[in-house]
This record gives sequence, structure tokens and C-alpha cells, in this order.
Amino acid sequence: MRKLKITEMGRMNAAEFKASEKMPLVVVLDDVRSMYNVGSVFRTADAFRVEAIYLCGITACPPHPEIHKTALGAEDTVAWRHFATALEAVQQLKEQGYTVFSTEQCEGSTMLQALELGIAGSPSASPRYAIVLGNEVKGVHQEVVDASDGCIEIPQFGTKHSLNVSTTAGIVIWEFAKQLLI
Amino acid sequence: MRKLKITEMGRMNAAEFKASEKMPLVVVLDDVRSMYNVGSVFRTADAFRVEAIYLCGITACPPHPEIHKTALGAEDTVAWRHFATALEAVQQLKEQGYTVFSTEQCEGSTMLQALELGIAGSPSASPRYAIVLGNEVKGVHQEVVDASDGCIEIPQFGTKHSLNVSTTAGIVIWEFAKQLLI
Repeated sequence: MRKLKITEMGRMNAAEFKASEKMPLVVVLDDVRSMYNVGSVFRTADAFRVEAIYLCGITACPPHPEIHKTALGAEDTVAWRHFATALEAVQQLKEQGYTVFSTEQCEGSTMLQALELGIAGSPSASPRYAIVLGNEVKGVHQEVVDASDGCIEIPQFGTKHSLNVSTTAGIVIWEFAKQLLI
Repeated sequence: MRKLKITEMGRMNAAEFKASEKMPLVVVLDDVRSMYNVGSVFRTADAFRVEAIYLCGITACPPHPEIHKTALGAEDTVAWRHFATALEAVQQLKEQGYTVFSTEQCEGSTMLQALELGIAGSPSASPRYAIVLGNEVKGVHQEVVDASDGCIEIPQFGTKHSLNVSTTAGIVIWEFAKQLLI
């Protein structure tokens, strides 16, 4: 099979991206320490046309050379905002009608493979979602989990039970994209 | 919802992991440059009990402090081998009966959301799979793509059409895990 050339991939330019319809999903980063992870989440958010990234607490904001290393320009296309705390971001999202999920291993979490969005009987005709991803060591703050509508967990079967933040973001955003975008 | 303590996560120790049944999936890294990416793939492979990682060409092998930074010990639990080239690895896998997919944007790729494994009529009662992930800039070598049984593509909708290698590995391994492990 022949690999596609870059010109055959149907890539949007930045102006087309800004004007395009987005997936109704906001990604909230709660004290993410690594700028490598922040940049990588920007790149994934570009690929799946995420509505916005909310960078909270100690999470670094663009422009920054370390973010650029993994975002490769996606930090200029994907909309973002900074909040002092993820709790503040989540409270605002909930006031605006978003359904907010923390990505965490909690008592009674919804396993990712069982996630069903936008099903009949949804309270809103145009449901909008947000997912919170936590700090590399401490995860999502307990008060942010408490303020969320639920928790989504990626089942894990090995010795670590701790996927990298940008890997977690990729897997969870992919599942939302399959239900909301593709 | 209460976050689980580490002791409540049912994590295996290294000996239990070694003895456990694995997902019949080998992950082949074709000239992956970044040790951050290598380590992150080890961590994901641990989470989903991947059978082995084949490190090919310039891809660095453990032990290495840079790999450890993102693998966090998963480089000691997940089985791995080194091959001089990914082509050699793929040829050996095919001789052993594995179905090999390159992860690439190709003419006629199978979109990941349409992937169906182990369906009726499969040539083997216990099908085994391998996925090849390519270099950060150049992707999978064309001759490795040619030696594969098919290509899997993650559809992308933004300006870049180039997800991070470890993010791509996470998303693709997750889809295999849903069909083979969970």
C-alpha cells in the first residue's frame, strides 16, 4: 500500500480550522506539570477538533518552546484559556450546561468502553462535554472529582495502573470523537 | 466519588505479570527516535498486557534512564527484543502466523473505528496480531508497509495529521484491547 503524501491528507490550514465546526468537548488540565504532555494534548486536540483546552493551576500556557516541541503548532490552532484552578473551570462549565467527567480511578467509575453519550433522553438537544485530566502524580483533585458529573476510567491490567497523561488524553478523546465527530 | 487508593487498584506485581496471560499483540517500533516515546509505549503495553515490544533499528533499548523516566518500571515487566530492522521483525512475525498491520496513512488504509478482529472465518483459531509504529518524522518505512497485511489509520480532522507516536500507540492498543482483552 502506498503511503499518502502530505498534500494528499486533506489537512486544513489554520484559518479553515478556526472556522470549522468543533467537537463539543472541552479538555481541562488540572495541574499538569509536564509541558511535553501539554503540547501533546494540543496536538491530539487539533487532530480531533476539540472545542477548547482549559489550562488550570500550574499547567503551563503557550507560547513556550517546550510546549511547541510536542504541539508542533497546534498551540496556535486549538482555542485555550487559563483558570487559576480546575475547580473554577469545572464550576463555570457546569453553569454553562456542560456534562463534566473526571478521568480517574474512582469507586463506581464508568469504564471507558461502557461510555454512552448523547443517548435518547439526554437533558440537552445539543449536549456538550468536558473531561478533566489530572496531575502526573496526584491525578485529579478530589474536590474537582466531587464537582464532576461522573468519573471515566480506562481499565488497566498490569503492574502500574497509571498511564501517561497524554496517552490517557488520546484514548479518552478518541472515544469521544467516535461518538461525537466521526 | 472517592478516588481509589493505590492498594485498591488490584495491581499485579512483576512476577504475577510475567505469569499472566497476555493480549496476543506485538508492538513493533520502527526507528522511533524519542526515548520518551519508547518509555511511554512500555507503560501502555504494561497496562494492556501486550505480549511483547519489538524495538527495531535506531529505537533505543532498556535499560536507559531516559526510557525509565516515562516507563516507570514497565520496561522490566513487558517482554521485548531488538531487531536490526523492522522489516526483519515483520518477516519473522509473518512466518510465525501473526497478522501485521502498519499504523500509517495509506491509500486504502482501514480506518481504526472500522477495525474488526478475530471474526468468523479467521484463518487461525487463535489469531495473533502485530502493529508497527514508525519514526516521528518519516513514519513506517515503505518496505515495512509493503510487507504488512494491511494499514490501520487513525482518522484526523485538523491541521497537522500527525499524532504523537505514544498517543497513536495508546489509541491503537486500546482498540485492540477492547476486542482481544476486555
